[in-house]
Amino acid sequence: MRSAESKSSSTTKTSVLVHNAYGKSGVRLTKVIRHADYQELKELTANIQLEGGFEGSYLEGDNSQIIATDSMKNTVYVLAAEHPLTTLEGFAQDLALHFLKTYSHVTEATVHLVEDLWLRIPTDGKPHPHAFVSAGNEKRIASVVADREGVSLQSGIDNLVVAKTTDSQFWGFIRDQYTTLPEVRDRIMATSIEASWLYRAETKVEAEKIDFNKNYDTIRKIILDVFATHNSLAVQQTLYEMGEAVLAAVSDIEEVTITMPNQHRIAFNLEPFGKKNQNEIFFPIDEPFGLISGTIKRGA
Amino acid sequence: MRSAESKSSSTTKTSVLVHNAYGKSGVRLTKVIRHADYQELKELTANIQLEGGFEGSYLEGDNSQIIATDSMKNTVYVLAAEHPLTTLEGFAQDLALHFLKTYSHVTEATVHLVEDLWLRIPTDGKPHPHAFVSAGNEKRIASVVADREGVSLQSGIDNLVVAKTTDSQFWGFIRDQYTTLPEVRDRIMATSIEASWLYRAETKVEAEKIDFNKNYDTIRKIILDVFATHNSLAVQQTLYEMGEAVLAAVSDIEEVTITMPNQHRIAFNLEPFGKKNQNEIFFPIDEPFGLISGTIKRGA
Amino acid sequence: MRSAESKSSSTTKTSVLVHNAYGKSGVRLTKVIRHADYQELKELTANIQLEGGFEGSYLEGDNSQIIATDSMKNTVYVLAAEHPLTTLEGFAQDLALHFLKTYSHVTEATVHLVEDLWLRIPTDGKPHPHAFVSAGNEKRIASVVADREGVSLQSGIDNLVVAKTTDSQFWGFIRDQYTTLPEVRDRIMATSIEASWLYRAETKVEAEKIDFNKNYDTIRKIILDVFATHNSLAVQQTLYEMGEAVLAAVSDIEEVTITMPNQHRIAFNLEPFGKKNQNEIFFPIDEPFGLISGTIKRGA
Amino acid sequence: MRSAESKSSSTTKTSVLVHNAYGKSGVRLTKVIRHADYQELKELTANIQLEGGFEGSYLEGDNSQIIATDSMKNTVYVLAAEHPLTTLEGFAQDLALHFLKTYSHVTEATVHLVEDLWLRIPTDGKPHPHAFVSAGNEKRIASVVADREGVSLQSGIDNLVVAKTTDSQFWGFIRDQYTTLPEVRDRIMATSIEASWLYRAETKVEAEKIDFNKNYDTIRKIILDVFATHNSLAVQQTLYEMGEAVLAAVSDIEEVTITMPNQHRIAFNLEPFGKKNQNEIFFPIDEPFGLISGTIKRGA
Repeated sequence: MRSAESKSSSTTKTSVLVHNAYGKSGVRLTKVIRHADYQELKELTANIQLEGGFEGSYLEGDNSQIIATDSMKNTVYVLAAEHPLTTLEGFAQDLALHFLKTYSHVTEATVHLVEDLWLRIPTDGKPHPHAFVSAGNEKRIASVVADREGVSLQSGIDNLVVAKTTDSQFWGFIRDQYTTLPEVRDRIMATSIEASWLYRAETKVEAEKIDFNKNYDTIRKIILDVFATHNSLAVQQTLYEMGEAVLAAVSDIEEVTITMPNQHRIAFNLEPFGKKNQNEIFFPIDEPFGLISGTIKRGA
Repeated sequence: MRSAESKSSSTTKTSVLVHNAYGKSGVRLTKVIRHADYQELKELTANIQLEGGFEGSYLEGDNSQIIATDSMKNTVYVLAAEHPLTTLEGFAQDLALHFLKTYSHVTEATVHLVEDLWLRIPTDGKPHPHAFVSAGNEKRIASVVADREGVSLQSGIDNLVVAKTTDSQFWGFIRDQYTTLPEVRDRIMATSIEASWLYRAETKVEAEKIDFNKNYDTIRKIILDVFATHNSLAVQQTLYEMGEAVLAAVSDIEEVTITMPNQHRIAFNLEPFGKKNQNEIFFPIDEPFGLISGTIKRGA
Repeated sequence: MRSAESKSSSTTKTSVLVHNAYGKSGVRLTKVIRHADYQELKELTANIQLEGGFEGSYLEGDNSQIIATDSMKNTVYVLAAEHPLTTLEGFAQDLALHFLKTYSHVTEATVHLVEDLWLRIPTDGKPHPHAFVSAGNEKRIASVVADREGVSLQSGIDNLVVAKTTDSQFWGFIRDQYTTLPEVRDRIMATSIEASWLYRAETKVEAEKIDFNKNYDTIRKIILDVFATHNSLAVQQTLYEMGEAVLAAVSDIEEVTITMPNQHRIAFNLEPFGKKNQNEIFFPIDEPFGLISGTIKRGA
Repeated sequence: MRSAESKSSSTTKTSVLVHNAYGKSGVRLTKVIRHADYQELKELTANIQLEGGFEGSYLEGDNSQIIATDSMKNTVYVLAAEHPLTTLEGFAQDLALHFLKTYSHVTEATVHLVEDLWLRIPTDGKPHPHAFVSAGNEKRIASVVADREGVSLQSGIDNLVVAKTTDSQFWGFIRDQYTTLPEVRDRIMATSIEASWLYRAETKVEAEKIDFNKNYDTIRKIILDVFATHNSLAVQQTLYEMGEAVLAAVSDIEEVTITMPNQHRIAFNLEPFGKKNQNEIFFPIDEPFGLISGTIKRGA
């Protein structure tokens, strides 16, 4: 919509609507898939944004081109009833394409899905067929932007909270009049990883060949492995190492973006109490926090 | 303090301070325990409240009996440096007793500890020695109230989020002019369990015989087992069943209190769209929620 | 319910349900009261808990005495449709009494209401008749516990966030080996006040004589006045001063409880940068925080 | 940084770092400005992100070009000690330019400031000189992006929570098989407005002529006025009306972006209880919510 500028209707008006979008956020869906001997519990939150010929509503309150956000919400449930929900990415894509197909004045549809993850409760040494315990705040994400040209598919992990108690260093940085931080050869590294990867596929046909679930599992494992085993000289370095390993392992992926807040553990000063802190006693702080990001792309 | 009323100093004053307490909350501690071949990461938040002869500060701004809350914070770190932190309950108890022992005018000390739980990251098929992933929002709790007579020890689990997709019913309840809820023989039950158990031990000597960690593991497993396997006629019934099973299994415990919000999944009405909801499509709501609690005590 | 112990039904069972309660929380109500020339917007959240003869549900899944929490929710809306909502306390009381009157096996009803506060948007120099801006996170509270003997009425303010940049001191406290906090004669005092006051009225007839709204306004003003004008030697002293002033001003009230977290502003050390902090530059921390409370009662 | 791609160092590597940025977030600052007869309390949270020649850290853990985020934090406090903080925009700009000026390898600095707003407590009929009450969750924002070419200045308001009980309609929208929402000629409109405006100034010299505080006050008032007085046919229409009025009133501004979640109040169905809902009884829901946005630019 940024390109298509809509001249304000009144001749005396001198303002233009250069971008508009609207949609429904926070559409929470639970689907139970009942098999003979076990059940699946899928829970996700859908956020939908549409762009297109909606200027009438903005400029004159003419809603004749408006798809009510309530109707978007209904659409999520109606489509979910028919959809196998095998992959989050598949459902995101089908939702986005639905809006383009159904409404000719929609030029772009963005569907962002956030999945709450459940684990089966172990009982009698095996996973229970229909009882679940939350996997915590970590989320699986799928985000699809579709227009008349094709689709852009991103998948991700959010809030993967990790910490390591050694094999993290930070030294050799700029020391000037604003620097008080000591160099450290052994610190705690703690972060909440957000990673998203862009698929190379740009059409539904290409997307159908992708094993999204396998890729998700692979990438999550790589990120955890690199975090655990990399002897880090900087959060930046660990981040890049993760991205490089992901691109090397998953050929479907074009680009990966990782964001890692540095959730600091500060050494507590025990000297006033006649003790030495043997790199053992810390206090976590939520703020301020370092925030490190990077996008790593497949080379030519 | 409720019993000891402190007459306001001025003769013209007619108000009395009938209860006072103060302390430090949100003291966040990280302790790394470094063994030869692995490391432990302990993270907890301490909340301390003291009662005692503090009226001078309230009535006249005389702080001569005041232990600064900043000093309480320091105490947490100083004691943690020496303490093995083998159990949360042990550290809570030692902190509480410290304040009673050190300050003769303290009549009661309450220490409430909330532990963030970490799991070892699996790498190469085994748990990594020093890299951890968050176990989520579930917390382990220890709460100790100590006075000159003895101690009261409570342990607990908070925010144990679970769901089951069948084996939950709700029918036979009162139907009157305020009732619109249909009876249901097969619903989703989802909740965030908070459980706390009171130990029979009332002194430090008695407490030393208790295996707090084993009891915690046992009780958590029982709660999950009952949740998964009980065919529930009411949240109330499931709750009681849990409490009864806990008391039967763990003889150290006198009483257990469980609170279970009913985190409703509402069936989405597909009929306007020409479809039937086969007990498959729901939407979760955060509010309103049923809130069910009960305390189950060992019988005579 | 604590007194009435319900023996578990099975003879082999040795656990007893010593307390039970349940209800609906988070019932959010909006009521618009439409007058000829202006409109009122009332928004509140109701939390209801009932105690009574509900053991059948806990012990055997027999729900015949269970008022569904969904019916409690309906009751809030049905009663709100008829109720003038002139005072929060009046609605809380009528809701609580409704449950006692309607269901003979209910022994105690607790209704806790939290009101979101709205201010009229000023337009053309006067308050707009039907457009509102949020008064922020501060809440007005009413909490009624009713049983067959009478009622207990508490009103309150929550999250009244205030700060003062001078006229707060803290010195003369205990200095020992756990103390590092310097004495200070001029500090920032910042807190989020929670105050609740217990009325002397114990029946609906007595309650009808009370001007709850006027009392609320008076008490809120007193608390702000004392906070602003009191030269504080301790948070404890300011708290007591507030309570005493409230009791002196409002004869309907028997007792007031105030809780004040000490939301610290820590002086930033500018010395490493060759500057002196002239008591000007601070950083706020959320944790840890001092937590001070007190209950002040009318003297004999 | 998106354009400047950094070839991975190893020849066997095939991944490229196409974007990197890092900084410190959540730097919370309190500054007290002490005048003879009154004091000012300024509280803000700074978020800083730098782009530039940092690839060494990502690719090889070489931190020689890294400005520690801890040093960025220090810089906020050191600069704040000297700065008058007359406007949020001025401080944001000076912080951003500081990083560009001090470190030649920094190519772009983004500073995002969020101000907590305080009101003076009224005592004795006038504003108290040094005691404050929080203005709630509404925030004032300044966001500056500076590079070697110039600056981009954005100011904003976040979380301006408003509601109106009439003069809002929604009808004439698309009705198809996904539509169940009834048309409505009189509904509650409630939202939390986020508005940000881009200044025309592109250099520090141009920025110096702007009265940022006056503009902020003007725009906030316009937004509230339009919200209160506009008879709305759609949230979209109200949003555009706000943007147009802002551009008409404040010539310094080039473009304004407004986002308005539609925080629904749903009519409660009283019919099962033999009553009619006279457009009076509603329940608010947090999710799902409509999310409407638009960018309005000054016409040619």
